[in-house]
Amino acid sequence: MAFHNSVVIITGTNRGYGVHLSETVAAKLSGDSLLILTARNKDGLEKTKNKIEALINGNNFKVLSVMCDLSKQDKVSGFIAKCLENIDLSKFSTAMFINNAGTLGDVNIKLKDQNNANLLNGYFQFNVINVMMLNSAFLKSFAAKKCFLINISSLAAIQPFSTMGLYCTGKAARDMMFKVLAVENPELRVLNWSPGPMITGMTNTMRGCCDETVATMFKNFDYVPLEVSAAKLMAILEKNEFKSGDHIDYFDEF
Amino acid sequence: MAFHNSVVIITGTNRGYGVHLSETVAAKLSGDSLLILTARNKDGLEKTKNKIEALINGNNFKVLSVMCDLSKQDKVSGFIAKCLENIDLSKFSTAMFINNAGTLGDVNIKLKDQNNANLLNGYFQFNVINVMMLNSAFLKSFAAKKCFLINISSLAAIQPFSTMGLYCTGKAARDMMFKVLAVENPELRVLNWSPGPMITGMTNTMRGCCDETVATMFKNFDYVPLEVSAAKLMAILEKNEFKSGDHIDYFDEF
Repeated sequence: MAFHNSVVIITGTNRGYGVHLSETVAAKLSGDSLLILTARNKDGLEKTKNKIEALINGNNFKVLSVMCDLSKQDKVSGFIAKCLENIDLSKFSTAMFINNAGTLGDVNIKLKDQNNANLLNGYFQFNVINVMMLNSAFLKSFAAKKCFLINISSLAAIQPFSTMGLYCTGKAARDMMFKVLAVENPELRVLNWSPGPMITGMTNTMRGCCDETVATMFKNFDYVPLEVSAAKLMAILEKNEFKSGDHIDYFDEF
Repeated sequence: MAFHNSVVIITGTNRGYGVHLSETVAAKLSGDSLLILTARNKDGLEKTKNKIEALINGNNFKVLSVMCDLSKQDKVSGFIAKCLENIDLSKFSTAMFINNAGTLGDVNIKLKDQNNANLLNGYFQFNVINVMMLNSAFLKSFAAKKCFLINISSLAAIQPFSTMGLYCTGKAARDMMFKVLAVENPELRVLNWSPGPMITGMTNTMRGCCDETVATMFKNFDYVPLEVSAAKLMAILEKNEFKSGDHIDYFDEF
């Protein structure tokens, strides 16, 4: 299966894994497809868009960039509608939403010292609540289509790590959210994708976290190249044999 | 081991499992112990307090009730201090915090229709963020004591159920939060306790949820008596051989 006449929205495409996801998805789209790239950083977003446009040179499908700060709840509610403005949805047979955007939290504060209500509210809004609202809006827009919902998860969703309390808690919540979406909507294809350890802004930050053991672990990881991880995700989606709602790790046999 | 010279705080003690937890804990306390009952419903809270005082008639330890609405973030920050007002902490050798309070969410809205930012913010504040802040404050107050942190969890923390999207997501987040607290603080004794299916306000609500299969499941459960579940938790805590941070279910061999 290729992604023919498909619309794909990817969040957090200004850098890191989001860029490689965008490139890998673009290479798999065919027909009257549309790739919508989103991020809050305008320069990074436009750079990714230019890269993709060069990559698909001559192909029929289109790339759009929509700038949006998904940490802002007043922006989130209208975001999907903004992405799909002036777009004729009738030509798409498949719709995919890759929830890649997310934040690490402050890795110099351990969980027992996390007591700033505003910071905590902001963290869970961006990484959990707003994701719930975005997927709700996405499913409303594409009610009659074959829909894929992809959550970019982490090993941290299922294993606790020191100094990563907010990240672990948020990722565990997100995994469960997508599992429930899968059981409530058997017609959907839902995947919690744990992409493996990759060299990104997040893992660079972890190398300097306040727990020496964890910092050393991140210094010594056998990192997976970003494009290799993205290619494995696309291969799993193309094969389309995963159990909807599953958490699949890069290192799992599949 | 008995809980001698211990201070125990339990949230959500106005009804249901919280009442039985309070009774079971009270029966295990000895010496100069203090049991602090908390809830947002005054009448229920005082009823529980009277019950416990009758139960411990003649014993040396004290029972306090502290009314507080833990859904309100401005109340949460000062809650632990309010509980411990005018109390000489030096006499306690052990401190335990049983995080029992929680809400089910609206079981007539499936996750794909959850898009009300205010309701979602309120849900995650009460069930996740405020719990994080409370445990932070608790650990600050009892820094030099042997501390037990108990999270009243659920099978829903590890298994998705239709119509229980908020509950599942919140419980998954809470479980991970306590797992991280355990790895970051090896001196703590942390337990995610899944108490089994019990007849409570929550399970009564579930019998009328909008998914017929799930409603029927809740109608046909072989329910565990509240006091039996509470006794098993106390037996596990007394034995004190669990791995800190573990999720233990009522039906697990232990």
